[in-house]
Amino acid sequence: MISYKRYMSKDGDYVASIVAKYSLKFLEDRSIISFAGGLPDPATFPVDDLKRIAVEVIEKHGCDALQYMPSRGVSTYVRELVDFLYRARGIRVDADNVIVTTGSQQAIDIIARMYVDEGVYIAVEEPTYVAALNAFRARKPRFIGVPIDDFGMRTDALEDKLRRLRSEANRINLLYTVPTAQNPSGVTLSVDRRKHLIELANEFDFLIVEDDAYGLMIFDEGASPPPLFCMDRSGRVIYVGSLSKVLTPGMRLGHIVAPREVIESLEPFKQIADLHTPSITQHIAAVALRERIIERSMPRIRSVYRMKRDAMLRAIQEHIVETAWWTRPIGGMFIWIKLNTRVDTERLLPKAYSRGVIYVPGRGFYHNEDGFDTMRLNFTYPSIDQIEEGIERLSRVIMEELCR
Amino acid sequence: MISYKRYMSKDGDYVASIVAKYSLKFLEDRSIISFAGGLPDPATFPVDDLKRIAVEVIEKHGCDALQYMPSRGVSTYVRELVDFLYRARGIRVDADNVIVTTGSQQAIDIIARMYVDEGVYIAVEEPTYVAALNAFRARKPRFIGVPIDDFGMRTDALEDKLRRLRSEANRINLLYTVPTAQNPSGVTLSVDRRKHLIELANEFDFLIVEDDAYGLMIFDEGASPPPLFCMDRSGRVIYVGSLSKVLTPGMRLGHIVAPREVIESLEPFKQIADLHTPSITQHIAAVALRERIIERSMPRIRSVYRMKRDAMLRAIQEHIVETAWWTRPIGGMFIWIKLNTRVDTERLLPKAYSRGVIYVPGRGFYHNEDGFDTMRLNFTYPSIDQIEEGIERLSRVIMEELCR
Repeated sequence: MISYKRYMSKDGDYVASIVAKYSLKFLEDRSIISFAGGLPDPATFPVDDLKRIAVEVIEKHGCDALQYMPSRGVSTYVRELVDFLYRARGIRVDADNVIVTTGSQQAIDIIARMYVDEGVYIAVEEPTYVAALNAFRARKPRFIGVPIDDFGMRTDALEDKLRRLRSEANRINLLYTVPTAQNPSGVTLSVDRRKHLIELANEFDFLIVEDDAYGLMIFDEGASPPPLFCMDRSGRVIYVGSLSKVLTPGMRLGHIVAPREVIESLEPFKQIADLHTPSITQHIAAVALRERIIERSMPRIRSVYRMKRDAMLRAIQEHIVETAWWTRPIGGMFIWIKLNTRVDTERLLPKAYSRGVIYVPGRGFYHNEDGFDTMRLNFTYPSIDQIEEGIERLSRVIMEELCR
Repeated sequence: MISYKRYMSKDGDYVASIVAKYSLKFLEDRSIISFAGGLPDPATFPVDDLKRIAVEVIEKHGCDALQYMPSRGVSTYVRELVDFLYRARGIRVDADNVIVTTGSQQAIDIIARMYVDEGVYIAVEEPTYVAALNAFRARKPRFIGVPIDDFGMRTDALEDKLRRLRSEANRINLLYTVPTAQNPSGVTLSVDRRKHLIELANEFDFLIVEDDAYGLMIFDEGASPPPLFCMDRSGRVIYVGSLSKVLTPGMRLGHIVAPREVIESLEPFKQIADLHTPSITQHIAAVALRERIIERSMPRIRSVYRMKRDAMLRAIQEHIVETAWWTRPIGGMFIWIKLNTRVDTERLLPKAYSRGVIYVPGRGFYHNEDGFDTMRLNFTYPSIDQIEEGIERLSRVIMEELCR
């Protein structure tokens, strides 16, 4: 057999190594308690509604729902999405400002292909979403990391770094952020910092990619600030959204909302990427949005996840070492722990696994492989019993490691 | 407002201009006869079966069908696909040799990202599939064009070009071909040329990307040679397939079949591209394959398309100027006409449109914008009456242009 590595593009070789190293392994061994995945609780899926709608869609729109469609999206779905974005997130746009993507991952990937060149500076949170990081890595930019605290990205630290860059006659072209209930940390950017971030974008001339994957999954009434997209007046925010967390992830429906000119320029990359997102799922989602399935199911989803989050926070409070810092998310799917000890969470994982609990070591969420003592814990997928038992197991593994 | 062009990557700027220029515009004005699209006849979609299966899938596998899934594909679908590839195309592989993609467009895109670098030589047919060309263009390779005749790509011409390249100490890294019922030309590569092509791949050390989108849509019994993938012994062929033409395009189900090492290296790009292909459509297709829906519906699809192809060939024979060369496809969706006159088909299009008939000018299918006197005609979407009327209209427009 021939050696295929010889034929690889330089990008291909690089991406294969970096992504394989940092992709999330969903070890779904049923005997262990997994805080590792990023899965919604399937009990939250509106299965009966979707079944009924699927039949209706194939019956009424059979041919359209199964045929090739425009790259930007099925027009009835785009119309419903525009209405939904206004109702749910206060985003007021036209169909011209929207492109439907195959999950928000594709949105990030085509934005990276359009706006990131090799060697260009881009800024990301430390930590940030690993699959977005990988999409950006494929473009070989230079990363500027911005630390987080309980109020999200530290925009003061960002400002310092931007000034330093400017003094070297450099600038960032783009900043990627998950401002609300961030993956992996769960923190939410405060209103003041949102304003500051937009000011910085104007002063230092960069685009903001706002990944709002968790914007609808807020459990605490009134706790969520408006999207950056709504606060910005200069057209610097490219908004990325998704139905994965609030309808179902398996339908892979994401979207980009941006000024018309940006959408137009992204369309060719969407064509290259997959011509268009599957039409049948767009038709199903169009009906689901029209019937307000998400609005009707969200109260229950929120209350289920609120209980799980609270259970995990209580268990952490009770069991985890006092040196640790952890986040108290207002929504989303994750709690982030920084142990503030000499414990390496990557090295700890096999031990935790042998005791029947797993998590994602934090290092993969850092552009620079920092964060050796951090971990991401998912609270949406496990049951409350599993959460309590799992955190106790985890605390014992950590204590043993500290007492060695 | 700011000017977004300033933020574009060099690739982005390039791709936006080139793809916008050559993307297929599906002008779906109902009053005109369109030979322009590449759409299957929706009357061929197994609507009732898919409706029944969709219900069954959501009922039985609701949560799985709607949840996040592995990047390589839903395992039950991959298993059914492996069986189907053997039954339908004689391709004998394991699940390890398969990755599911969001349409075959995504397959081509991730292969391009993995195996094509800026400045690297790659070979394509002249003409070739425009959306593949665009995916390759995004990587900025140097194109080597290989002319076609009634028996497909002229491998003798390819050999000449490879020798010339070698004499300059150069080589191609990859060759992209649609060997069976090609888009856009409809021609099929003969068995002898298939053998020759594989010999050349070995002698001149390149990979072959075989796009078999139309391999199952052959109307003439026994006319179709085996896939290159099955003839190759050296592991040089990366096979790209799709259910778009034989089940439904709207489900966007494509796949790559290749040696395990190639699949492994492509997986990170699949993750970057969209994490995974929608799970619900994979579950539906798994049942459709298990129930042999495609095998059961293909005889009817083939006979419908055979009649349409024959009607178009008859009409062309009767009406189109005698200097023209046109193809006689054994399957697929397209007939290709080279007028062999001074008529520029791009300039002719507005006139044809005003007379109520449209087609795709051939130039977009050439890497070098050649083929000014060529056009692609689709025969699967229009009715037989429309085919006859449309070709007559087209011939009148051409005659008028010639007699000016």
